[in-house]
Amino acid sequence: MKLIKDINFLIVGLGLLGGSYAKGLKNIGFKVSAITKNEEDIEYAVNNNIIDYGSTEIDPKIIGEADVVIFALYPHIFIDWVKNNQQHFKSGAVITDVTGVKGSVVYAIQDILREDVEFISAHPMAGKEISGVKNSDPAIFKGANYIVVPTEKNTESAIELCENIGKMLGFQRVSRLSVEEHDKMIAFLSQLTHCIAVSLMCCADTEGMEKYTGDSFRDLTRIARINDEMWSELFLNNKSDLLSQMERFRTSFDELYDKIKNSDREGMREMMRCSTVRRGLFDKE
Amino acid sequence: MKLIKDINFLIVGLGLLGGSYAKGLKNIGFKVSAITKNEEDIEYAVNNNIIDYGSTEIDPKIIGEADVVIFALYPHIFIDWVKNNQQHFKSGAVITDVTGVKGSVVYAIQDILREDVEFISAHPMAGKEISGVKNSDPAIFKGANYIVVPTEKNTESAIELCENIGKMLGFQRVSRLSVEEHDKMIAFLSQLTHCIAVSLMCCADTEGMEKYTGDSFRDLTRIARINDEMWSELFLNNKSDLLSQMERFRTSFDELYDKIKNSDREGMREMMRCSTVRRGLFDKE
Repeated sequence: MKLIKDINFLIVGLGLLGGSYAKGLKNIGFKVSAITKNEEDIEYAVNNNIIDYGSTEIDPKIIGEADVVIFALYPHIFIDWVKNNQQHFKSGAVITDVTGVKGSVVYAIQDILREDVEFISAHPMAGKEISGVKNSDPAIFKGANYIVVPTEKNTESAIELCENIGKMLGFQRVSRLSVEEHDKMIAFLSQLTHCIAVSLMCCADTEGMEKYTGDSFRDLTRIARINDEMWSELFLNNKSDLLSQMERFRTSFDELYDKIKNSDREGMREMMRCSTVRRGLFDKE
Repeated sequence: MKLIKDINFLIVGLGLLGGSYAKGLKNIGFKVSAITKNEEDIEYAVNNNIIDYGSTEIDPKIIGEADVVIFALYPHIFIDWVKNNQQHFKSGAVITDVTGVKGSVVYAIQDILREDVEFISAHPMAGKEISGVKNSDPAIFKGANYIVVPTEKNTESAIELCENIGKMLGFQRVSRLSVEEHDKMIAFLSQLTHCIAVSLMCCADTEGMEKYTGDSFRDLTRIARINDEMWSELFLNNKSDLLSQMERFRTSFDELYDKIKNSDREGMREMMRCSTVRRGLFDKE
């Protein structure tokens, strides 16, 4: 399947990410529709040129017209949606997603999906602390990473289509990972960091600390403002990977604690030099 | 002492912070000199209108002309410097600093200092991951916090002078804390966050992770690029406060770990909601 301008995109779930996809694709010139639960989000998106049209209903016509369907839903809602509504997909349609964990989603969807429709999973590593279509903005993809997560069931053409969506939307780097590699990586890079930020914020006891804070604390806890419904689901869907990454971190943290306690200055400096070198690799280009 | 434009400032230690102070004060119209160890930093600062003049030597004339001396040195160098060179201070001079820990510095300096010179300590909560006078920029003070740390030995006029320096430089909020309050606060807000970032960076084992990372990991580890000489000294100078804050964090982190392990979704969500509310207080105005 080629990415020609007359293919139709359908976004299911018009929040921050769904809206940013929609706007980005529409800016390029694609026809973009949406199905989402709130009428006002559809109205806002139509009025602000984010989508061409949309519905709050499971509209067989809208679904049947779509060549590519992008799901931006919570994992369990996504699986139920496909189970209940897949009869409406156009034959030959490709569906993809933005879900933050893959093991608990990708195989489940591919197992239940009609044989004439292909699901190729993707994870756009972009977001904001504020949600909703009104905050959507394809600029969040700039400089960000986009991971395609194929399985043995996927065709090369669908994988490439999915990669092209990431490239078109302006992601800086488009990569492929297996489901298992992805979930391990995400447990470390994303879920563990959220656990740290939440734990840090929860153990703060002093009132009025914001009067004395520097940017280091602000940056580290930016993600402590967290959507508890979504993240608790993501954590539990990737529980064993997340727990083992939390254990890794705790070992490293305890090591530094012991070095400070023992006034082992050279040992502390060694860890700091290691972290400095490694962190150098992570700057945005 | 009033802040009139004809008072002379001397900066000792012309790095990122010293240079940013110098530039900010000179922009306002003050006469600013500097003493620092590298000749090229003096040259750069003079050529770029950061200071009026400076020296790499302990120049009694430069020191004796200064009404206010700002020390931007490592703690132990600061104490030695005052011990060895305080005979050159002008009678009635006020000295201040930018040191990140206070308990191990403030009393030591006030104990050895001549009676006709006053030391009022301050902590500008601003910085960058890159150092040196060439990266200095008073814009780093914008929106940041500035803490004055007086003791019983300080006069109200020196405290106000010190507060006025913070206000003039453009800090958003100027506050006062006792030495003990400051060090406890800083152990939590600044040192603990650096410990977390370093530990996280050190436990990363997978190669090429930067290809898959999102902004949350980048933000959380920004400060993992760390000056090991300075921070190991700051950690050890505030060891007991830091260790107890590390223990607080670990208790909170373990609590979240247990909730995930037990699939206690409501317990996880409660911590996330707590962190979300608290983090809301920390946004810059």
